[in-house]
Amino acid sequence: MGLQFGILCFPDVQQLDMTAPYEVFASARGATVQLVWKNRGPVRSSTSLGMTPDVSFADAPAFDVLCVPGGGGVNALLRDEETLDFVRRQAQMARFVTSVCTGSLVLGQAGLLSGRRATTHWNAHDLLSAFGAIPVKERVVRDGPIITAGGVTSGIDFGLAVVAELLGREEAEIIQLTLEYAPAPPFDAGTPETASPAVVAAAKARIARSRAEREALIGITS
Amino acid sequence: MGLQFGILCFPDVQQLDMTAPYEVFASARGATVQLVWKNRGPVRSSTSLGMTPDVSFADAPAFDVLCVPGGGGVNALLRDEETLDFVRRQAQMARFVTSVCTGSLVLGQAGLLSGRRATTHWNAHDLLSAFGAIPVKERVVRDGPIITAGGVTSGIDFGLAVVAELLGREEAEIIQLTLEYAPAPPFDAGTPETASPAVVAAAKARIARSRAEREALIGITS
Repeated sequence: MGLQFGILCFPDVQQLDMTAPYEVFASARGATVQLVWKNRGPVRSSTSLGMTPDVSFADAPAFDVLCVPGGGGVNALLRDEETLDFVRRQAQMARFVTSVCTGSLVLGQAGLLSGRRATTHWNAHDLLSAFGAIPVKERVVRDGPIITAGGVTSGIDFGLAVVAELLGREEAEIIQLTLEYAPAPPFDAGTPETASPAVVAAAKARIARSRAEREALIGITS
Repeated sequence: MGLQFGILCFPDVQQLDMTAPYEVFASARGATVQLVWKNRGPVRSSTSLGMTPDVSFADAPAFDVLCVPGGGGVNALLRDEETLDFVRRQAQMARFVTSVCTGSLVLGQAGLLSGRRATTHWNAHDLLSAFGAIPVKERVVRDGPIITAGGVTSGIDFGLAVVAELLGREEAEIIQLTLEYAPAPPFDAGTPETASPAVVAAAKARIARSRAEREALIGITS
C-alpha cells in the first residue's frame, strides 16, 4: 500500500497552505491524500474557498504523514482539545508530523515542538519559543519526525522535501517538473528583509487583529 | 465595488492551477473570487480534492478577470460548447481573460488566442500553434486582454502580475509578503531544460495518455 497523507482541513484555514502540499503529495507515486476534519461537512477557507473533507477524525487511518496548515482558523484550534488530541494521537503513529505556516502553532500547542527546531510564517516566528521550540529562520526545518515549513507558499518547497525524504530525490524531481516549479516572482518582496518598509507595515496591518488574538491565546496558555 | 475574479472549476481540474491564483486574487484589497461552473454541485480535482463552485454559468456576473486553469479535465472542455460559449461571452466583457497551465488550450479552442502571444505547460507548448497562437516560452505572457501562464505553479507568479496590473505594484508586493513568496526549490528540476533526461522521460510518461488524447482532439478540430 502506498503512502497515506492526511491534511487537517478546518474552518478559516489558509487554503494555499493546504492545497500546495496536497498537490505535491498527491502527485507522488502510489500516494493517497485525504483532508481530515471532525466531520465531513463542507469547510470554507479564510478566503472563502469551499472544500469537502474526505474523512473524519473518528474514521481516519494512521497517516504516514500528518500535515497541519495555518491561517486565521488556527486561533480556534489553539484551545480545541478535540483537535489537539487528534494531532497527538496521529503523532504517535506517523512517520512525520508536519506543518505549513502557522500550523506549527498547533503542533506547539499539542506539545510536539518542545526542544525541537521549528519554523512558521514570518509574522508568527517569535511566538514559537512560547511552546519551547527552537525558532529557525529557514523555509523548511526538519527535527527528527517533525517537519515545519515557513509561510504559505513554502508549502511547495516543503512538499518536495517530504517526498524526497520518503520516496527519493528522483520522485521529487519528477513532481517538480510536472508542476513546472521553476518560480520567477515578479518582485522581490517575499520576506520582511527584502520587502520595503511600507509593504511590511501594510502586510502587518492586514493581519494585526489575528496576530493580537493569537498573542493573547498563547500568553494565556504558555 | 471591488474587482470580481471568476475561476473556472471543472471536473478533473488540476487544483493547484486554480487554488494558487485564487489565493493571490482573494488577498487583494476589496477583491471577490468565485469558482464558476455549469452548476453548483461538488467538483473533484484530478487529484481528488473536493470543492464547491460558488456560482453557475447562468448566474455568473460579468467578471473583471476570468481565469481558466488546466489539468486532465481540459480534454473534455475542448469539445464542450456550453463551456466554450461561457468563456467567449465572459471574454466580451472582462478586462482580462486568463489561463494557467493547459487552461490556455481552452482559450485557444474558444478562438481567443488567434494571432496572440501565449504560453502553457511545457508538455503542451507545441500544441498552441494549432489554435493560431504565437507560442512564447515565458512563465507569464500578456498580449492585450489575454494573459496566459505556464504550468501549474506559475499561477503564483501570474496572480501577482495580474494584481500588479490592476491594483499596482505595492498591492502585489503586500500579497507576495503575506504569502511569504520567496521560493527556494530544493532541486533544479522545474523545467525540461534543467531536469535530467530520466526525470523528463518519467514525467512525460505519467502524462502521456492525457497528452495523446489531447493531440487527437486538437488534430480533429484544428
